[in-house]
Amino acid sequence: MNLRQKLTPDETRMRILEVAEAYFRRVGYTKTTIADLAVELGMSSANVYRYFPSKGAINEAICRRLLAESHELIEEIAGRLVPASERLRTMILELHSFNKSRYTGERRMHEMVAVAMEENWAVVQEHLEFLIRLIARLIDEGARTGEFRNFADHLSVAGTVKQACSCLLHPMMIAERARTGMDSKDDTERLVAFVINGLKA
Amino acid sequence: MNLRQKLTPDETRMRILEVAEAYFRRVGYTKTTIADLAVELGMSSANVYRYFPSKGAINEAICRRLLAESHELIEEIAGRLVPASERLRTMILELHSFNKSRYTGERRMHEMVAVAMEENWAVVQEHLEFLIRLIARLIDEGARTGEFRNFADHLSVAGTVKQACSCLLHPMMIAERARTGMDSKDDTERLVAFVINGLKA
Repeated sequence: MNLRQKLTPDETRMRILEVAEAYFRRVGYTKTTIADLAVELGMSSANVYRYFPSKGAINEAICRRLLAESHELIEEIAGRLVPASERLRTMILELHSFNKSRYTGERRMHEMVAVAMEENWAVVQEHLEFLIRLIARLIDEGARTGEFRNFADHLSVAGTVKQACSCLLHPMMIAERARTGMDSKDDTERLVAFVINGLKA
Repeated sequence: MNLRQKLTPDETRMRILEVAEAYFRRVGYTKTTIADLAVELGMSSANVYRYFPSKGAINEAICRRLLAESHELIEEIAGRLVPASERLRTMILELHSFNKSRYTGERRMHEMVAVAMEENWAVVQEHLEFLIRLIARLIDEGARTGEFRNFADHLSVAGTVKQACSCLLHPMMIAERARTGMDSKDDTERLVAFVINGLKA
């Protein structure tokens, strides 16, 4: 893309994120400097800094964008017109696939995610809260239709469900399962079935 | 300890492991060389090599020793004269506490464990199989007394139980929970109760 084309500030921001994400994946997050990204973007470092105050801020924005994508995905599933247990099952399995495709594969990606998680714990926390609220909503709906039991506190049960599935959802665990050949589809489905069964009336 | 005291080969081996573990915890695994350990031990590098062919071999032995300790602990719990569900509950909670005390706290320890897990996956695998077999034995006993349901394949259910509890048992997850203040005792107990409930008849 020729940068002399007039990009809006939003478009420039987006382009910086895209180029940075590709660069981090290829070269590694810690090894990359703002100057490297500026060269890759064909702009000055000063210009990059006009959009992002630091490399950490770029990583945070990439992280937020990835999480926003996953939120769209699970929100859509949560709204489907099928039983709550079915939606919850699909939601966990699809989020697992999404995270697997986004957060693994390249070793350097793993580093970027690990740094992002350490440096932007607040962003991760928000994401986890979003996920837990969505699970709680499905537990709530399932309890009202008699599919699930009536728990005293749906939010806390949702937290337990999230914890029980963490080996399917946490980037580090997904990466380890993939690396060690322990991410069998059968094991994944068995775990999700076990967890959902534990909610049933 | 004065090395001129006559130590048997087994005692020397043990001493090398103890000194190495302390050194790794203090200085970090990757930064430590065999020469550093030899100085610390008051012996020649050549002598250290007579016992362990590499730094990796030392780490593997430390790893095996830690895991053997945890095996003793859970085997003892599995043999207690209380209902299977109670033993399983205690086993998971105690293993969680054990791992938490051994694998977290010092950041450098975390590095040593991460390297050990990557380099000695076979050792970790053996450990996981030991754990799964023990869980399967308790599920089996519980099913025979009518406490637990009769599952088609106890070993595979045991694998699911292990997976569901991985955020309590996996060193990386334990470290993250501790670092982010998410390792509440209530959450831990709720997860274990949820999992054991899922086994009940």
